[in-house]
Amino acid sequence: MSINSYGHLFRVTTWGESHGPALGATVDGCPPGVALTAPMIQEWLDKRRPGQNKMTTQRQEPDAVEILSGVFEDTTTGTPIQLMIKNTDQRSKDYGDIANTFRPGHADITYHQKYGLRDYRGGGRSSARETASRVAAGGVARAAIKSLAPNVEIKGYMVQMGEKHIDRARFDWDAIDGNDFWCPDAGVVTEWTDYINWLRKDDHNSVGAMIEVVARNVPAGIGAPVYGKLDTDLSAAMMSINAVKGVEIGEGMAAASLTGRANADEIFMGKDGPEYSSNHAGGILGGISTGQDIVVRFAVKPTSSILSPRASIRMDGTPTKVITKGRHDPCVGIRAVPVGEAMMAAVILDHILLDRGQTGGVRGQIGPQT
Amino acid sequence: MSINSYGHLFRVTTWGESHGPALGATVDGCPPGVALTAPMIQEWLDKRRPGQNKMTTQRQEPDAVEILSGVFEDTTTGTPIQLMIKNTDQRSKDYGDIANTFRPGHADITYHQKYGLRDYRGGGRSSARETASRVAAGGVARAAIKSLAPNVEIKGYMVQMGEKHIDRARFDWDAIDGNDFWCPDAGVVTEWTDYINWLRKDDHNSVGAMIEVVARNVPAGIGAPVYGKLDTDLSAAMMSINAVKGVEIGEGMAAASLTGRANADEIFMGKDGPEYSSNHAGGILGGISTGQDIVVRFAVKPTSSILSPRASIRMDGTPTKVITKGRHDPCVGIRAVPVGEAMMAAVILDHILLDRGQTGGVRGQIGPQT
Amino acid sequence: MSINSYGHLFRVTTWGESHGPALGATVDGCPPGVALTAPMIQEWLDKRRPGQNKMTTQRQEPDAVEILSGVFEDTTTGTPIQLMIKNTDQRSKDYGDIANTFRPGHADITYHQKYGLRDYRGGGRSSARETASRVAAGGVARAAIKSLAPNVEIKGYMVQMGEKHIDRARFDWDAIDGNDFWCPDAGVVTEWTDYINWLRKDDHNSVGAMIEVVARNVPAGIGAPVYGKLDTDLSAAMMSINAVKGVEIGEGMAAASLTGRANADEIFMGKDGPEYSSNHAGGILGGISTGQDIVVRFAVKPTSSILSPRASIRMDGTPTKVITKGRHDPCVGIRAVPVGEAMMAAVILDHILLDRGQTGGVRGQIGPQT
Amino acid sequence: MSINSYGHLFRVTTWGESHGPALGATVDGCPPGVALTAPMIQEWLDKRRPGQNKMTTQRQEPDAVEILSGVFEDTTTGTPIQLMIKNTDQRSKDYGDIANTFRPGHADITYHQKYGLRDYRGGGRSSARETASRVAAGGVARAAIKSLAPNVEIKGYMVQMGEKHIDRARFDWDAIDGNDFWCPDAGVVTEWTDYINWLRKDDHNSVGAMIEVVARNVPAGIGAPVYGKLDTDLSAAMMSINAVKGVEIGEGMAAASLTGRANADEIFMGKDGPEYSSNHAGGILGGISTGQDIVVRFAVKPTSSILSPRASIRMDGTPTKVITKGRHDPCVGIRAVPVGEAMMAAVILDHILLDRGQTGGVRGQIGPQT
Repeated sequence: MSINSYGHLFRVTTWGESHGPALGATVDGCPPGVALTAPMIQEWLDKRRPGQNKMTTQRQEPDAVEILSGVFEDTTTGTPIQLMIKNTDQRSKDYGDIANTFRPGHADITYHQKYGLRDYRGGGRSSARETASRVAAGGVARAAIKSLAPNVEIKGYMVQMGEKHIDRARFDWDAIDGNDFWCPDAGVVTEWTDYINWLRKDDHNSVGAMIEVVARNVPAGIGAPVYGKLDTDLSAAMMSINAVKGVEIGEGMAAASLTGRANADEIFMGKDGPEYSSNHAGGILGGISTGQDIVVRFAVKPTSSILSPRASIRMDGTPTKVITKGRHDPCVGIRAVPVGEAMMAAVILDHILLDRGQTGGVRGQIGPQT
Repeated sequence: MSINSYGHLFRVTTWGESHGPALGATVDGCPPGVALTAPMIQEWLDKRRPGQNKMTTQRQEPDAVEILSGVFEDTTTGTPIQLMIKNTDQRSKDYGDIANTFRPGHADITYHQKYGLRDYRGGGRSSARETASRVAAGGVARAAIKSLAPNVEIKGYMVQMGEKHIDRARFDWDAIDGNDFWCPDAGVVTEWTDYINWLRKDDHNSVGAMIEVVARNVPAGIGAPVYGKLDTDLSAAMMSINAVKGVEIGEGMAAASLTGRANADEIFMGKDGPEYSSNHAGGILGGISTGQDIVVRFAVKPTSSILSPRASIRMDGTPTKVITKGRHDPCVGIRAVPVGEAMMAAVILDHILLDRGQTGGVRGQIGPQT
Repeated sequence: MSINSYGHLFRVTTWGESHGPALGATVDGCPPGVALTAPMIQEWLDKRRPGQNKMTTQRQEPDAVEILSGVFEDTTTGTPIQLMIKNTDQRSKDYGDIANTFRPGHADITYHQKYGLRDYRGGGRSSARETASRVAAGGVARAAIKSLAPNVEIKGYMVQMGEKHIDRARFDWDAIDGNDFWCPDAGVVTEWTDYINWLRKDDHNSVGAMIEVVARNVPAGIGAPVYGKLDTDLSAAMMSINAVKGVEIGEGMAAASLTGRANADEIFMGKDGPEYSSNHAGGILGGISTGQDIVVRFAVKPTSSILSPRASIRMDGTPTKVITKGRHDPCVGIRAVPVGEAMMAAVILDHILLDRGQTGGVRGQIGPQT
Repeated sequence: MSINSYGHLFRVTTWGESHGPALGATVDGCPPGVALTAPMIQEWLDKRRPGQNKMTTQRQEPDAVEILSGVFEDTTTGTPIQLMIKNTDQRSKDYGDIANTFRPGHADITYHQKYGLRDYRGGGRSSARETASRVAAGGVARAAIKSLAPNVEIKGYMVQMGEKHIDRARFDWDAIDGNDFWCPDAGVVTEWTDYINWLRKDDHNSVGAMIEVVARNVPAGIGAPVYGKLDTDLSAAMMSINAVKGVEIGEGMAAASLTGRANADEIFMGKDGPEYSSNHAGGILGGISTGQDIVVRFAVKPTSSILSPRASIRMDGTPTKVITKGRHDPCVGIRAVPVGEAMMAAVILDHILLDRGQTGGVRGQIGPQT
């Protein structure tokens, strides 16, 4: 049991601190024979990278991934894949009072209370930088899915920033990659941009966000009741991301308001199998996929790293005021989009493997080719 | 890896189907030396039992728990505790078309798609009856918590039924046990009672609910980042309960709407340790407990087992209409209250054990008593 | 992580004490669609049962297994299988000094030292009676293997009792079931019978044994390096059996004495695949099966429960002499034969599942049969 | 579940291939507050390093370990520790026929049969080079043991090489570090040296070995029955090492030959607790430590990489002869000594943690120092 790992058969262990020499992911359980190169993973890391767009922190790091093991001649061998990302922008600086002060809303205080000590440089292990490891591992998951279930598509996007919501009537799948918010409603982009600039420059504030991740064309029958349900694993996967405070599937929290008749997804026979009148279930029944779109949403809280002073204490219990200077995103939810996609990919692959095993029964042939 | 298990060190495996001979929970990892008897567990099972109040299904079963192992002279020995509940109300009946028909909103269809066969009697393994096993295991967790962290209190209650919400201004901890809804606002009970009776008798419908579970006096420093965070594990625990579609911690989904200043829990030094100006975090920072109340909410969808006909198909693909007759709760959320409490207890105990181990270093003495 | 469980995907948790109400096994991960009935499991339990032959303890229990879950219409459903064996021969008796005395060579003293208390009745959880749970679970494994890899044969037998060895030149597979020792050399049976009778009646002593278990026709390619190697898992499986002190694969401990030339298994191409000049490897290379016979041996120590007095102490540290009266086998190794077979079956199935998954990709069809 | 990991709470995942860019170990579950530096780990790696003495392969690599995470200011933080060893001696060479030929006694053929492809350079993942990762992780375990149970001493040594045994009467603990065989009997060193030189140069052969590892001063009460027994875990740990074919505890395989009276370890009360007349049990009863020396032995087969030709086949099934040229140890057992020590350290620490948890309940203080 590794507490820094997730997944049943596709097992990922992330390691590394914000300001240590490197961070990465140890990926065990990837099937053999999957085409995999560093650039294939880099593509997803680049999407998450700070400094990628104007909305996110100014920390400039290439976040270049290296594959140290498990891949031979651009093909996975079925052995552990070690992914390493060197930390190159560890600014040498005076950490001043940070080592002895607890930032409100940060894990500073609880790490201290649990472990009796902490790596205070940039949040150490509790830094959002840990999510780079997840995105790298998600890149491996995507490559394996491409090999095993090529029709599956996974896509995340932002549906709410603070009190500003998208208009679902203008939802456009193709708009997502065209703006800095990964927002499917191009009509809100200007307003959101103005708002986030004001937050950072004038209000010295931050804001929360709601992310939705969808997996299309996942075959029916994936998921493992009762404690490895697809929704259970997705919920844990998303809630484990820094700053996430809530997760919902399909109708989600709104299901509490509905009646049974309103919530029913009626079933019809289509030409390729069962079809449904609606998707309140979010593509999952009894923890197993129905074949419909799998729909997950999660809420990201506003970062507590803001330029406005807040009351706190030092390790010795004396009071202080904390202002968080430096490179911080006004809306960390933006970068949570590729992270949510990566976690979705890992969970989907994991459940495909539970059903078909690591090798799927394929074996190397010996003897004359037939 | 057992897919029917939860917990890291306090490891519970539930087993059994709705209409098989029995169901139960295999509980491994309970520390030795904990006072435990069947009546201590029965107390919690009685709270969940169908037929317990007028709001829930009329299925009448005593749900009497037997302890088959792991307890000697009313004390746990540190070995696996087997809890068994016999199914006594397996009405012999004609299952008619059920074996060949998929009920909309049920796991019938996905179990068939995954396994190629299913125990169709009463939903088999996917029945809400599985939650009796959780409540029994939760009784063991409560007993162990009582021994290791006696100040901890765990309490669940309903805060919303359909579109009807409690008035938080009237929140009364002591009201919870005084009504059939485990509702902390006595002022809504009459209205809710009328509504649910109308739903069942006249509208032939069901309704969703929102449950909140709170753990008080959990010591600071409990939780295991990054993939065994307290909130991650609570999220998985609640999402694994039948019919749950969303889970949130503290501010939850509403955190998406807030700014960093609004969401800040400022820190002050109290006489017994750090105190906070508010609890937006729900008692958890970086996956570790702060010492504040741990607050979880989850949404329970309306049951799809209603007397109103809905479109569906048979195994051969032909269309049909389904009406679910028989013993069904109009609001399954009511019975989810003790289940949510049980899952909270299991998660809290599990994390206490991760920190202090199974025996906590206590050892039997040999030699003259000193 | 359950410490009372074994297996990666075929996950067995045993529970129960020697003199509690019942004991059994919770079996998770058995594939769906396997034919399984209680009599199919009972067959193997009967082989292990005390009182089955003259050589073993006189404790008379039917050891009747009940299937409480996971099987519907004599077919596994893919959900947890609960196997229960009631303890019927819990003689009510005066345990006298046993509760306060440590028997030399027993786990009495270490359970006390670890847990601070113990169920002293018949050894509690540390009793060899726990192995009945393994044999029951092994019955499930055998049924699943029969379904997935029908050519596999698993057979255990005794090759040494004390200083008496079989003559390998007289090895006869068919002789094994024909004597009370599961011995493949019929020529030693009379001598062994006389010896064990003398041990029990005259010498008040016990004796160790060596068991060999072979799995034939296991397909090549099974096993999961590096820490789930087939030999690693077999080693753990056998060493976890009560009284086992050593485990070896193929050439085993004797490999230390050999040179590389002597130990080489040369490879030739046969008509159905690779063939080998010998099987020093015991059917495993790099933790993966070669397709040859998988050969495991394990040593069972002589039981310390003998009628001869040995020095010991009481809980208060005062000296005492211990004589173990009652029902005890002079050679517990005999009953270890079916236990070893059961563990072999569980490991083999587990690794087949790691390769092909729980459902192997098979899915239930919906729509007109084609 | 990661198949490339071992340990319950002290969880080590090894990664890397013989000729890839690097290999290493991801170590999760090390308690916080342990003094740890790279040189502390390097000390043990140097002991294992090829080229360290004349007896082992001439491959010359510094095997310099880097700590990439989990350590801050030379102290563990309780987060994952990433250990990396770069491969510096990856001779660029023509692998010739190796990619298409299976070496007898190697995992070449089974990796191919399982995965359908393999990294054939130097054995890839199946290379003994993987054990460097174990030794590095063992260095972390030793550091943590030093902090939690400072009296524990762990020592391995060779007791047999081929048919040559040490004389137990000359056993000298202090002689072990004084010769190239880690042999406790200085009297055999000259003979063994001559023998191994002859094997390599003249006989073009290799030879097996028997290694013994002892842990002294392990407190009584460590171990977790029934499937996490100390002997079970030690057995798996040792059997997972390349080329190991058998493992035994205490009396081991010889226990099969003994009677109950001969095998009895009688108990007496000493001034610091129970004492025993002998240690046939090898320090473990019922899977739990007695406080006596824990004694494990394992047999290492002779390497199949020898200069003598052996029959084999190519991937296309055609026959060939294989001679293994290059850098290979005539007795790989020598280098297994530090590997066995490392595995012993990991298992002992793991079980200490199961009893006392990751933090042992220690918490960081906030407020005025008292």
